[in-house]
Amino acid sequence: MDFGTLSGRAVVVRTSDGEELGTAVHAYPHAVIADRLPGTGRRLPPDWALQHPEDWREVLRTAVPAALAAAGVDPAAVIGIATDFTACTVLPTLADGTPLAELPEWARRPHAWPKLWKHHAAQGQADRINALAHARSEKWIHRYGGKISAEWQFAKALQVLEEDAEVYAACERWIEAADWIVWQLTGTESRNTCTAGYKGIFQDGGYPSEEYLAALHPDFADFARTRLEHPLAPLGTRVGSLTAEAAAWTGLPEGIAVAAGNVDAHVAAPAAQAVENGRLLAIMGTSTCHVVNGPVLADVPGICGVVDGGIVEGSWGYEAGQSAVGDIFAWWLRQGLPADHLAEAEANGEDAHQLLTRKAAAQRVGAHGLVALDWMNGNRSTLVDHHLSGVIAGLTLATTPEDVYRALLEATAYGARTIVEALENGGVPVTEFVVTGGLKKNALLMQIHADVLRRPVSLAASEQGPALGSAVHAAVAAGAHPDVRTAAAAMGRVQRHAYLPDPARADAYDALYAEYRLLHAHFGTGPDLLLHRLRAIRNTALSHDTED
Amino acid sequence: MDFGTLSGRAVVVRTSDGEELGTAVHAYPHAVIADRLPGTGRRLPPDWALQHPEDWREVLRTAVPAALAAAGVDPAAVIGIATDFTACTVLPTLADGTPLAELPEWARRPHAWPKLWKHHAAQGQADRINALAHARSEKWIHRYGGKISAEWQFAKALQVLEEDAEVYAACERWIEAADWIVWQLTGTESRNTCTAGYKGIFQDGGYPSEEYLAALHPDFADFARTRLEHPLAPLGTRVGSLTAEAAAWTGLPEGIAVAAGNVDAHVAAPAAQAVENGRLLAIMGTSTCHVVNGPVLADVPGICGVVDGGIVEGSWGYEAGQSAVGDIFAWWLRQGLPADHLAEAEANGEDAHQLLTRKAAAQRVGAHGLVALDWMNGNRSTLVDHHLSGVIAGLTLATTPEDVYRALLEATAYGARTIVEALENGGVPVTEFVVTGGLKKNALLMQIHADVLRRPVSLAASEQGPALGSAVHAAVAAGAHPDVRTAAAAMGRVQRHAYLPDPARADAYDALYAEYRLLHAHFGTGPDLLLHRLRAIRNTALSHDTED
Repeated sequence: MDFGTLSGRAVVVRTSDGEELGTAVHAYPHAVIADRLPGTGRRLPPDWALQHPEDWREVLRTAVPAALAAAGVDPAAVIGIATDFTACTVLPTLADGTPLAELPEWARRPHAWPKLWKHHAAQGQADRINALAHARSEKWIHRYGGKISAEWQFAKALQVLEEDAEVYAACERWIEAADWIVWQLTGTESRNTCTAGYKGIFQDGGYPSEEYLAALHPDFADFARTRLEHPLAPLGTRVGSLTAEAAAWTGLPEGIAVAAGNVDAHVAAPAAQAVENGRLLAIMGTSTCHVVNGPVLADVPGICGVVDGGIVEGSWGYEAGQSAVGDIFAWWLRQGLPADHLAEAEANGEDAHQLLTRKAAAQRVGAHGLVALDWMNGNRSTLVDHHLSGVIAGLTLATTPEDVYRALLEATAYGARTIVEALENGGVPVTEFVVTGGLKKNALLMQIHADVLRRPVSLAASEQGPALGSAVHAAVAAGAHPDVRTAAAAMGRVQRHAYLPDPARADAYDALYAEYRLLHAHFGTGPDLLLHRLRAIRNTALSHDTED
Repeated sequence: MDFGTLSGRAVVVRTSDGEELGTAVHAYPHAVIADRLPGTGRRLPPDWALQHPEDWREVLRTAVPAALAAAGVDPAAVIGIATDFTACTVLPTLADGTPLAELPEWARRPHAWPKLWKHHAAQGQADRINALAHARSEKWIHRYGGKISAEWQFAKALQVLEEDAEVYAACERWIEAADWIVWQLTGTESRNTCTAGYKGIFQDGGYPSEEYLAALHPDFADFARTRLEHPLAPLGTRVGSLTAEAAAWTGLPEGIAVAAGNVDAHVAAPAAQAVENGRLLAIMGTSTCHVVNGPVLADVPGICGVVDGGIVEGSWGYEAGQSAVGDIFAWWLRQGLPADHLAEAEANGEDAHQLLTRKAAAQRVGAHGLVALDWMNGNRSTLVDHHLSGVIAGLTLATTPEDVYRALLEATAYGARTIVEALENGGVPVTEFVVTGGLKKNALLMQIHADVLRRPVSLAASEQGPALGSAVHAAVAAGAHPDVRTAAAAMGRVQRHAYLPDPARADAYDALYAEYRLLHAHFGTGPDLLLHRLRAIRNTALSHDTED
């Protein structure tokens, strides 16, 4: 099962070969709660994003039976279940796992509710977490590119403490939704290696020290010990059995294996056979997440995180990301298209993306004369700076919409190459670039990545990579395969080397990438950044508008 | 009379107060000849732009009588005529002024035809003219911002010599159309101070030396002496009388005063009362030309030219320019508009410019978070570099078309401020910024200029500034006023201080202008420019396309 931002998906998969036998998707009735708290008229502040735990249970009750029906298999044949979730999506519960949001005494308090990954109202807390970590030279900070995200467990928990101490006091467990859903299935708490490492600052066998936490806030000192601490379950292990209650919800046999929780990005690696060291999986959509295994702990500046066993047991799992990819192409289309382009698209039965892609694909590398920085939503890796913004250079009166479109596709490929080079320079070899997610269907984008990266681009074959990846973990937890690597080889599917680099185009892109790197350095590094000043000027101007 | 790129205009003006009594415009039948030579199937090479001399005579025969009729005045009441022309538009003639293009033996030779100002096929010659001037430390080169343009007299003439020596040999006079049209009216040759100085490298009483010209090409040594040399006529002087033939063409009285030729930009200064030292006139349209008088010869890097008496007798006339202004706004609109914007414009009965202007005008300074370099058509002043290109920085996923539109308006104002500061830093005070041309109607653009420049912006009142300026010169040549300054005071019209700077907005723009200047320095100066490399990459890619 794959729990996304707006819906949950159940897929029935054959353990022998990964064949996907049946699928069902259920949209969360409350979707993302960003405006008003359910059951109240209470307005939420800006940048908040919550979810409703009952929506997640509803997926168990609806999507699982529907997928079983679609598969046409006897439920008794199902031997295990595994789940993946968005992360860091995190909630406060009682010691028995009951969400505070579901208790009448807390339901009207916003901080009692699960905070979705994209709740961005804890930036102030994150800034202090980072400043203190650097001031104290906490060694774990370097495992996260030097920055703990406002999206993660500690920033969100500290926000609860500082803004609603009563909810914080009532919170007996602070738990990832990835682990909470497993609790619903098994009746017992578990904590998985992946979210504990990437989102919970669990490194080298422990959480940040009580001294460090006390320095953040005196009442935060025991946060990890009292609300997080629990033996970690490696990925693919069986953490319990399906309870009678959960069996009744899902129609699955009571007592079957339930695997440790996992994250949607990381779990997709085995679905694409990207578990061997050096096979980087790029989950490419509105933004891109990169996960790759390496044999040793290496110091790679600017990555999101490195976790021992964070993707698969026995390897160090590296995560990096680009904060906007498909979102950038969509942004450019939102600027509009000329009338002649619109008429041409209509005559050809194309949508706007298809039209610009076709026109851009006809261009020789470099013919548009442009190079862009792909920072329209900041830079996650390798600069870890969300206050950056995009730049386009080389514009002339002859520049067309398809010129800019192609330059933006290329910019995201340059961003990917920057990450790949950072990994390799840091000591993490990248032998192959495997793509999953919606953008793998964009042939021009894939070929540009092959040419810019000078590497073959392989494509995950499944259209539901995270769900298939969860099935791999379920098969291992149930004992159908001895470990995730073996299961991935049997059940994962990949179109190996679907795109090969063209040497002449790759040479041309080397020259353009060199210019990208110069812009990257000029606008992205240094103590006093022009783009930061523009952001500050913008924010000041907009705050005046709010006052008016 | 005002001879433009596509048409000629005649205006009948009252000498006492500048009242415009009647106007007529006649479009040139051959317009710009850029494709095939008239009367032949012969294709012209890229970057060529020619015109037909008979088109210009046709304006005399049609527009002048039409304007007289529109004015309803007795032609006998007309006491003088003056003309202004695009420049450098230049042609080869016999010693009697007959254009080679009109002789059967030369009519099929492209180089026999008048080269329009925007004929850009002599860049190779211009490059050598400049390299040699710097190598020989010719002092006149610094009067032109260090660069003689490929558009000007010497580059175009050298191209004729090198590409068609027979035409060059047959050319007895090489003359600006500005002076040729006066020859048609008076029957005698004259050369005006303005084009000789700004386009003909006439400085300190002479043209470039024979030694210099011989070093360019042995057969070019006597070019100036044999084909250009002629006593110069100061602006506003009477150079002759209307011939019987020209009187018959125009319906004007034979023998009336004909003034020295002039250039469309420079002649507009008295029409806007911008002849006093320090009153800078910006002729703002697709591109912008700046003319301003100063009391002394100052060394201002990056201007187009400085000429003693180049705008008005008794002052040093400084010219600078921005190679694209309105063209940049039009370029952005050519990228298209979103469907909701188009629907809103249609509902409001607005065109696209009006829609974006209205939305952009509602923004607080800096709220879009953008700064742009206005180099989409290169940079004329102060960098004198046509291989530069545009840059937009600060783009986010929230950036809208009106954000970019406003940033582009602002970028052209920053470009204007850069020129004004260069003049002032070079020793040419600029006390007032007076605008004429089509863009003076853009209230948002005018207010932005006032705020960015921290100066009042005044507007020329006439809609036909060059033609009114010519009338001022005609009145002086005919003796109705003693000199151009006096005539300008009586006949010129200006809306003084139509826009005043707002101190708060000006402060906000100071911060953004500082960022513009940093981008300007980073991308515009130095030995090895990223934008030049992008241009070279583009040209290489496009030349491959041509080969395919």
